[in-house]
Parts: sequence; C-alpha cells; structure tokens
Amino acid sequence: MSTPTRVPPEEFDSRLECIREHLAETDADAGIWFGATSIEYLTGFDHIQTERPVILAVTDEEVALTVPRLEVDRVQENPWIDIVAHYDDYPGGEPVRTAIEMFEGLERPIESVAADAEGAPGTMGYQGPALTEFLEVETHRWVSRMRWEKSETEVELIRESAKWANLGHRYLADYTEVGAHPATVSQRASMDASRAMLDALGDQYAPRTRGGGPVHAGYITGEQTRLPHGHTANRRLEAGDAMITGATATVDGYYSELERTMFLGEPTDEQEHYFELMCEAQDIAIDKLGPGVPIAAVDRAVREYVEEQGIADLAQHHVGHNIGLGGHEPPYIDRGWGDHCESEHTTYNSDDAVMQPGHVWTIEPGIYTETDGYRHSDTIAITEDGIEWLTYYPRDLESNIISLE
Amino acid sequence: MSTPTRVPPEEFDSRLECIREHLAETDADAGIWFGATSIEYLTGFDHIQTERPVILAVTDEEVALTVPRLEVDRVQENPWIDIVAHYDDYPGGEPVRTAIEMFEGLERPIESVAADAEGAPGTMGYQGPALTEFLEVETHRWVSRMRWEKSETEVELIRESAKWANLGHRYLADYTEVGAHPATVSQRASMDASRAMLDALGDQYAPRTRGGGPVHAGYITGEQTRLPHGHTANRRLEAGDAMITGATATVDGYYSELERTMFLGEPTDEQEHYFELMCEAQDIAIDKLGPGVPIAAVDRAVREYVEEQGIADLAQHHVGHNIGLGGHEPPYIDRGWGDHCESEHTTYNSDDAVMQPGHVWTIEPGIYTETDGYRHSDTIAITEDGIEWLTYYPRDLESNIISLE
Repeated sequence: MSTPTRVPPEEFDSRLECIREHLAETDADAGIWFGATSIEYLTGFDHIQTERPVILAVTDEEVALTVPRLEVDRVQENPWIDIVAHYDDYPGGEPVRTAIEMFEGLERPIESVAADAEGAPGTMGYQGPALTEFLEVETHRWVSRMRWEKSETEVELIRESAKWANLGHRYLADYTEVGAHPATVSQRASMDASRAMLDALGDQYAPRTRGGGPVHAGYITGEQTRLPHGHTANRRLEAGDAMITGATATVDGYYSELERTMFLGEPTDEQEHYFELMCEAQDIAIDKLGPGVPIAAVDRAVREYVEEQGIADLAQHHVGHNIGLGGHEPPYIDRGWGDHCESEHTTYNSDDAVMQPGHVWTIEPGIYTETDGYRHSDTIAITEDGIEWLTYYPRDLESNIISLE
Repeated sequence: MSTPTRVPPEEFDSRLECIREHLAETDADAGIWFGATSIEYLTGFDHIQTERPVILAVTDEEVALTVPRLEVDRVQENPWIDIVAHYDDYPGGEPVRTAIEMFEGLERPIESVAADAEGAPGTMGYQGPALTEFLEVETHRWVSRMRWEKSETEVELIRESAKWANLGHRYLADYTEVGAHPATVSQRASMDASRAMLDALGDQYAPRTRGGGPVHAGYITGEQTRLPHGHTANRRLEAGDAMITGATATVDGYYSELERTMFLGEPTDEQEHYFELMCEAQDIAIDKLGPGVPIAAVDRAVREYVEEQGIADLAQHHVGHNIGLGGHEPPYIDRGWGDHCESEHTTYNSDDAVMQPGHVWTIEPGIYTETDGYRHSDTIAITEDGIEWLTYYPRDLESNIISLE
C-alpha cells in the first residue's frame, strides 16, 4: 500500500462534488465558508486565521475566494480556485463587501447562500458587518460533518503522520535522563525527528509549517502530570518522575496523536498499579471500537470499569476524540454523545451516534491521582469490518521505563 | 528599573476593579466571559480553548468559574477565583447549564448579564445552548478594549520578552550558513535560547508552555519570502538567499515581535535597493509614532512614501498591529482605522482613533517583489511623551548580511 504525503487532486474534486450535492438540496445559490480549516479542506488553500477574513464561495460552476492583498500570490498558485477578489487590508478594506461585489459579477449572481456562519469570526479583534446584511443566509455544517468519515487517502496521511510521531517519541525516550531539562529534550527530539522526516520525504514533503519543524514531541513531567492540561515546569528531570508524553507530525495538514505514560527509573508499586489500571481502561475502550458501535457505549464501558475499581473520581475526562486536520475534532467519545445527537442544540441525528468506517479516534482514558497522572493515547481508525491501529509505539510498562543506567 | 517575569497580584486587583466600574454603569448583575484570553487577563487562569467551554462570572463581590472536570485542580491553585463549579466533560456535561445553576447559588443571584458573547464559541465543534436562553444578555468588549493600553508592568513583560527574542534571533543568525536546513536552524536556535532563558530566570520563570520552549525563532527563506505568509520550504540554504526572520518569547503569556530581512552573502544591487526602501518606510512610520497621533496617519505616511517611490503595488499589507497576550491584537495601524472607529459595525469611538501611552505596536511595513520579500518588524511602546523601542536587534544592512566565509 502506497502512503501519500499530500492530499491528491481527486480528493478536492470529490469534496467539491459533495458540496454541490448538498447545495442542490437547498434553495441557496452558493455555499459560503469563513472558517480556515473548511476553506483548506475544500480547496487546499491553507491560511492562518487572523483579523483579515478569507471568504470562500462555491456555486454549481465556480469556486471564488476573497482574500486580503497579502494572500493574493499564494491563491494564484491554487488550481481549484477560479476567481480571486481581494481587499487591501483590514480595517481599511471591507472583506464582506468585497465578497458581495465579486458575487454580483459571477455567471449566476448570488442572492441567497448557505454559510458556515452568519459572518466572519471575531478573530484577533475583527469587527465587520454580518453577511445577513447583504444576503439571505441559512447556516450549515456541511464541511464539519463531512470531515468525520475520512477517505482512504486521509487515513493514509494520518498513518504517515503516526510514523514520524513515532520517531519523535523514540528520540524523546532516548534523550530522557536524570538532570536533563524536559523543554530541551522535547525541542531536541522534535528537531531531530523533523530533520529525518524532511530528508526522508524530500520533494514529497508538503510544506506546512513556518519557522519550525513538522514533528513535535514533548511531555509534562513530575507533579504536573496530575493535571491533564499541565505545563512544562522549569525543573530538571529526577529519578522517580512520571512523564506523560505527546508526539505528532503534520502531513499536509493531517495529524495523529501518540501519548505514553513513562517513568524515569523503576516505578513504585502505586505507580505500577495505576499504570495497569489505565492500560486496562484503554484496552476496554479499544475492544469496544468498531463500525456500528454506539459512540457513547465506549465511554460508558470505561466508566463502568473505573467505577468497579473505585477510581471513578480519578478519571477526569472522556475517552477520546476524532483527529485529522484538527487536533481535536468531533465526534467525541463521551457517554453523553448519543443524547447530544438528539438535542435541540445540535445539527446531529441518531445516525451520527454510531461509529463509522473512516472515523479516526484517539483513545485516551486518563487516571489522575494526588501525585501523578496516567494516560496513553493511541490513534485508531474504524474500518469496514473492525479497526486499524495507526500508532504503534509499545504500550507495556517495561517498554516505558527509562533505565537509570 | 526591575523587569518582572510574572504578572504581579496588584495587576489582577486593578483589572477586576476596572470590570466592577464597568459593571456599575450597567443594569447587569455580572460580567461574563467565554474567551480564554479574557479569562486569563482577569484572573491569571490560563487554559487552552477547546470543545470544553470555560465560563467566568464577575459580580460586585465574587469571581466564579465554570470548568470541565479536568481543569478543577488547576483552578483551585488560583487565588482570584472564589467559587468553582464543574461539569464532567462535554457533551455529557452541560457547561452553560452548570454555570446557570452555580449563579443561582450566589450571594446575589444573577438575572441579567453583560457577556463577551451570547454563548460559548464553536471551538473544535462545541454546540450548546446560548446564554440568552437562560438570562438577559447584553454583549460588551470591556476586556478587549482594556487590553489596548498596557500598564507599566505589562510593558515590562513585553520588554523582557524582547530580550529573549533577541537571543533567539542572534542564535538564528549565528547558525545560518549555506547548506543548513532552515527548519533545523530555527529549531536549534529556539532550543538554545529557550534553554538560556529557563536557566537564567530559574524560579522567576512562569511556566506557560507545554512540551516546548518559551522562545521561538524561525524564518522563511528564498522565494517564499515574497509571500507575507509563506512556509518553510524543504530546501537547504543557498548563497544569495533572502530571509525574513521572526523571533518571540512568552513571558507569563506576553509576547514581543522581532523580524529582520537578512541575506546569505552579499545582496544584489536590487536586493540592497529594496532593503533600503523598506528601512526608510519603517523609519517614516516610527518617526510618526507618539501619544495623540491619529493611528491611520501612520499607515497613510507610509502609503504616501511607497506611492512616491512607485512601489505602492509591492506593499501588500498595513504597517502594524498591537501585541501583548495576543500575537496580533487591535488596534491596527491601517489607514482605514479612523473611519473604522466611526463605523456602525464597531464598538469604537473617535477617542479610539489616536495612539495612547501604553499601546505596544509592531511596526512592519513590507515590500514584496517578484522574487523576494523585505520586512523588518520592531515592537515599540507609546510613552507619555514619546516612544520606547522594546526590540533592539540591529536594523542596518551590514548587520543583516551573513558572511559566506
């Protein structure tokens, strides 16, 4: 099986085709997007979302993009975008008005639209008129929803990401020793794995970063591990430290997630005990996964286990999330997910409550005691008839002890 | 003058006091925030904005925070927050409902609020009920506006950031040579400068990062420089390459910005010509800065200069932005800024159209030819009677040529 390192052209064809099918089911003349990730998903044009809105319009026949002046040259290299309009800058230029004027010049003028929001987000202080001042707008979540079921190619990009995350993680473990600084070990592992990835892929590498590397490997250590969103403390590593690692790599915008609980030197009996409970919880979740499985049932199975073990209060978050162009993306493995789908506040329905082939999940039940945290995270794809592990760094205790010698 | 490396406690007292003054001018019982940066600004509690909303309420007497279970322990260390409510996780837990139930138990129950948004943002796929379903809500931008005029302490944090950015930039220049890979030079400079900052500050360092370093230094090189938001290409550095650098460091959440146009070996006459034009444009902007100066006038002065020089079409963006807790934050140096303040779409007024002591500006007019880009960025504070340069890396051509020997 060949593994691509870039989203292939056919993928954008089929995404745009899917949008046009959605469009045909509405009265709207165009689909509109303000969200950077959605615009990237449909056209391959990636940009940093700032105070300068970018506005994508897709009609039956055309793909049109409104950008600030500073993005014009980058858009012109893009084969999917037929028409480009630009404003000078913000706030002197008027992004929404520029888009509206461009719409008026299209083959078939746009009067009503289906948009991902009523206006551009207030990122970095942007304040401008809503689209609703100019056009009839209904909102949709077509792209967010399309991203749930990854294509075979998307899964392959995440598989490629997992490979380089694994290398970063290996370097992280290799460079970890008593007296080393966690920030420096993280940065050195990230640098060396990025270097290897860039040299291995050569021209096949799709440039996606600015002033950094495509691989990131790092950790939180010592008492910070008991905080699921802890920081890297300014202290040197000591014998007995627990560590929760995290490694990923971007492959044309796609991410995987690999996390391990490690120990610097032999763990205590207590640490070993909770490590084994955490592994068992992860096993229980993974055993449950598969096409057609109710998403909430996976979280519920883990919840039942931690309740049986009397450690329910140490499990501080749900079991996992999807991953792809976003590091966290829906759906979420949460025991409330099924009810959420039926809630009046969402656009989901009961079909959205079960796992489907193409979902790519992180499975990462965590346990947090007074002194240490315990969490592995693996990235696992749902297939037609089961699952595929995309991450493969060893999960057992022995492999995750850094020897003091 | 001592330079702090953490936001001091008095700062939070005065921020909360300012909020209570705003509150006294409304009929609202509480101020509410969903935005992570605003919550951090008012309480010092920093978190990553995810699908799990965090909700801050400030009343005359109390500061109350609603968080997901996984943040409870981190909040409890915070001296500014009186009351903490939590939901298990999302979507099983109900963030907004949890907050509402907590409000009902306060000394003086909350019936109408002034909030930074009508509900939690749709980050990472969050979908939940708006606050307006439960309470009377008027929206405000108190914190965004308060952040414009930095206190003396905030300016000092940015001054400290500039010091470590300068070190990162120095290493970047030192490690740059023909045959080196830009990603690796960036990562190595970031690693070494982070290492020095962490060791120099010791206990004074406020941990703010996860799995990485507090300093980032990087660049875009060669033909990517002609794109203001270019990528790091997968190629080795060659003699004759232009480079646009960028360096920053986080000091308790505050950033500075330092960018330089550099050349690997002697620049061509054309490169030297555009470099000098860019420096002159930056000088013109900086000469204009000062308290009471109309913000739009600074951009207009640069625009007049590039028009005179016949290169208006090569200037692809406005002159600069403010910087602090956000890497880009309003106000913006844009010739449309004055009109923007008077526009029906903003909450600004004519007083907001001029520079004030405490504004911290990046000054970075750019010129982009068919082959190369040219941009310096300096971080400059407005004082009571003039300006203060916070960045100080040399700007002249000679200092920005990397010798080939």
